[in-house]
Amino acid sequence: MAQFLNTRDADFEARFTALLGAKREDSPDVDEIVAGIIADVRARGDDAVIELTERFDRLALTPETMRFSAGEIAAQVAKVAPEERDALELAADRIRAYHVRQMPDDQLWTDPDGATLGWRWTPVSAAGLYVPGGLASYPSSVLMNAVPAKVAGVERLAVTVPTPDGAVNPLVLLAAEIAGVDEIYRIGGAQAIAALAYGTETIAPVDKITGPGNAFVAAAKRRVFGKVGIDMIAGPSEILVIADADNDPDFLALDLMSQAEHDESAQSILVTDDEAFGHKVAEAVEKRLQTLERRAIAGASWRDFGAVITVRDLDEAAALSDRIAPEHLELCVADPDALAAKITHAGALFLGAWTPEAVGDYVGGPNHVLPTARSARFSSGLSALDFLKRTTIAKMTPAALKAIGPAAETLAKSESLEAHGLSVRVRLDKLNEG
Amino acid sequence: MAQFLNTRDADFEARFTALLGAKREDSPDVDEIVAGIIADVRARGDDAVIELTERFDRLALTPETMRFSAGEIAAQVAKVAPEERDALELAADRIRAYHVRQMPDDQLWTDPDGATLGWRWTPVSAAGLYVPGGLASYPSSVLMNAVPAKVAGVERLAVTVPTPDGAVNPLVLLAAEIAGVDEIYRIGGAQAIAALAYGTETIAPVDKITGPGNAFVAAAKRRVFGKVGIDMIAGPSEILVIADADNDPDFLALDLMSQAEHDESAQSILVTDDEAFGHKVAEAVEKRLQTLERRAIAGASWRDFGAVITVRDLDEAAALSDRIAPEHLELCVADPDALAAKITHAGALFLGAWTPEAVGDYVGGPNHVLPTARSARFSSGLSALDFLKRTTIAKMTPAALKAIGPAAETLAKSESLEAHGLSVRVRLDKLNEG
Repeated sequence: MAQFLNTRDADFEARFTALLGAKREDSPDVDEIVAGIIADVRARGDDAVIELTERFDRLALTPETMRFSAGEIAAQVAKVAPEERDALELAADRIRAYHVRQMPDDQLWTDPDGATLGWRWTPVSAAGLYVPGGLASYPSSVLMNAVPAKVAGVERLAVTVPTPDGAVNPLVLLAAEIAGVDEIYRIGGAQAIAALAYGTETIAPVDKITGPGNAFVAAAKRRVFGKVGIDMIAGPSEILVIADADNDPDFLALDLMSQAEHDESAQSILVTDDEAFGHKVAEAVEKRLQTLERRAIAGASWRDFGAVITVRDLDEAAALSDRIAPEHLELCVADPDALAAKITHAGALFLGAWTPEAVGDYVGGPNHVLPTARSARFSSGLSALDFLKRTTIAKMTPAALKAIGPAAETLAKSESLEAHGLSVRVRLDKLNEG
Repeated sequence: MAQFLNTRDADFEARFTALLGAKREDSPDVDEIVAGIIADVRARGDDAVIELTERFDRLALTPETMRFSAGEIAAQVAKVAPEERDALELAADRIRAYHVRQMPDDQLWTDPDGATLGWRWTPVSAAGLYVPGGLASYPSSVLMNAVPAKVAGVERLAVTVPTPDGAVNPLVLLAAEIAGVDEIYRIGGAQAIAALAYGTETIAPVDKITGPGNAFVAAAKRRVFGKVGIDMIAGPSEILVIADADNDPDFLALDLMSQAEHDESAQSILVTDDEAFGHKVAEAVEKRLQTLERRAIAGASWRDFGAVITVRDLDEAAALSDRIAPEHLELCVADPDALAAKITHAGALFLGAWTPEAVGDYVGGPNHVLPTARSARFSSGLSALDFLKRTTIAKMTPAALKAIGPAAETLAKSESLEAHGLSVRVRLDKLNEG
């Protein structure tokens, strides 16, 4: 059973602060092991990757079999049921349609001094997408990472997905095919991140790596950051539901559980302006926890990190929500748009009772890779922008240089950077001669 | 003297690869010291910051004197010469005008299924800007960090700048004032980063930290990443100049030296299609190195990392440039726009002989905080976007949920996430009853 809080209680602030600060994840310190793996892959390339895959995934590879062949992919995806293929294609289409709108415009203008200024966006040339193996091998995550990369124009997109004991998930391969992935390698762990970042004889290096993974993968991404770009380091998932009493308690119970079933360290919080309704939702949760397949995980998450918070009104709910800065925020109230306008920090908003967060996980269109652990205060979900970079442009005419060059020279002098100042001065002198 | 390369030479590829891979910076391993400092500031707050400032900056502070008072700031900025004030204001105006154009639009649309989708940008609430003390305490960097933050709408902007032995740079305070900075603290090092990230009794925590610093500051930023957002970890600066023979060799020599004078590990490279012209520029560099104030630094950089590369034609120059992915790229050729169109990876472009990179450092308008060490392959210069985050929006109608919900349910089942599927199914059932 989750804990109950009420903003009217004297101990509310202390308990809410404790809830905010709860350490939900104990990351094992694998940094030294990961450093060794990366050094090994840099030094020995394919040989190291093959040895590590044999050790960790009990799978014997050669440089030739490291990559899935076109024939193998075709054979695997043929196993997928038509209904699942249709669902993946609908999801991909909707994710693509959403992310295409994120593509930013280039700009170029001439200012009153005659300087032409602007910028230009270009895609990263090559990206790598890490896909976990085993239980957390989600085809939906393949789409959520690969589709934005292809929308951005990434030319070469390589996927790594471990296949422990040779177990392959056909849906992951199909999602990669639908998204337009160019290469798929059956490797995983820190060795896959190292191979993507530094390259081996078989795997060409990439410029950016995205995708979720375990503690080893996260530590490896942190280590190769700088050599390549990375996306965020994802933490355990969380949902906040703000609801009035005019909701079906079971709907909200399932929304809370759809977060909790991910992970024992996931967090599900209900905020309501009606305490009795809060109890009804909690009862519905208990009922669902009797039958859910993943009730052990969901139950532990709800017990350890779940909460039902009663507030005086929805303004108070919005203020609490901003302190939490939730990854997912459902607004199940009479006027969700009005409440949304009062929210500043959230990864993704789901408005109204007909928008369960699970729709956003798969087919809504927006990305499901979102900032966790309060990082929505300063970061955003994955987008096409993550696979683009911007080059700024400046072009001075002689008149523009005459207008603004002297100020540059003054500032260079004040910073004791003589060559900076002289590079402007010699040009101004030549213009003044002419 | 820099080294000379020619793409026609048999050993070119080997030498160019060595140039690309040259390790220009030996970062001391200060990670353990920094971890201790951060833990100390988290545990003891102001007391720790005050003790560390006494030890490292030989400056005795109290919680009351940690922050510059309005009176002190006024007294310091009164010392600035009118010419310097005018130059800073011109720079700030131009930087502001450029960055205002970066502000992205919110979007909201309804798709054919009836789903309303979109996103909304909001500013980070509080940002911290680290400004180095001593020689590298550049007022221009204060503008380049603080102006975009204020353009983005950051409500609270705190600056930390160490004042070793009490030495204050009035121009830094004036730049902060012009940019609209809200708080200025005379602290530095890892203790300043820890105070900004975790807060102390005197300093409220921020959500994002930007700004350059030494190895201690860089290590501290890496460590607090996740708790707060950070900008890039900057490496030594670099410039690539692509020039034809129709240029003044002394102009280009000074452009190369304006990078080299920053740091012995800076890198300046000239690429030209005329070998004789390359030698002329190198001669002009040698002449300038006899008199430049910072000739020891600039000379070491040019000797150890400088290069003059002769290419067959400008297409080859563009291809080499993309392999370098330079922070600054000057195109001093007859048709710089045509050449720019062939460039994919660069932090900032400077087009034509009248656009010395130094103009961009101060008054051009684009940001001078740019991706170094080949990271322009995957990252961009600082911008207003770095102080914004995006919340995605989804709102389903009953009709939209009927249209796309079944696909979400199918995918949830295929990922064995039962509660996800049920949260959609119970709603579809209720709609089908109704």
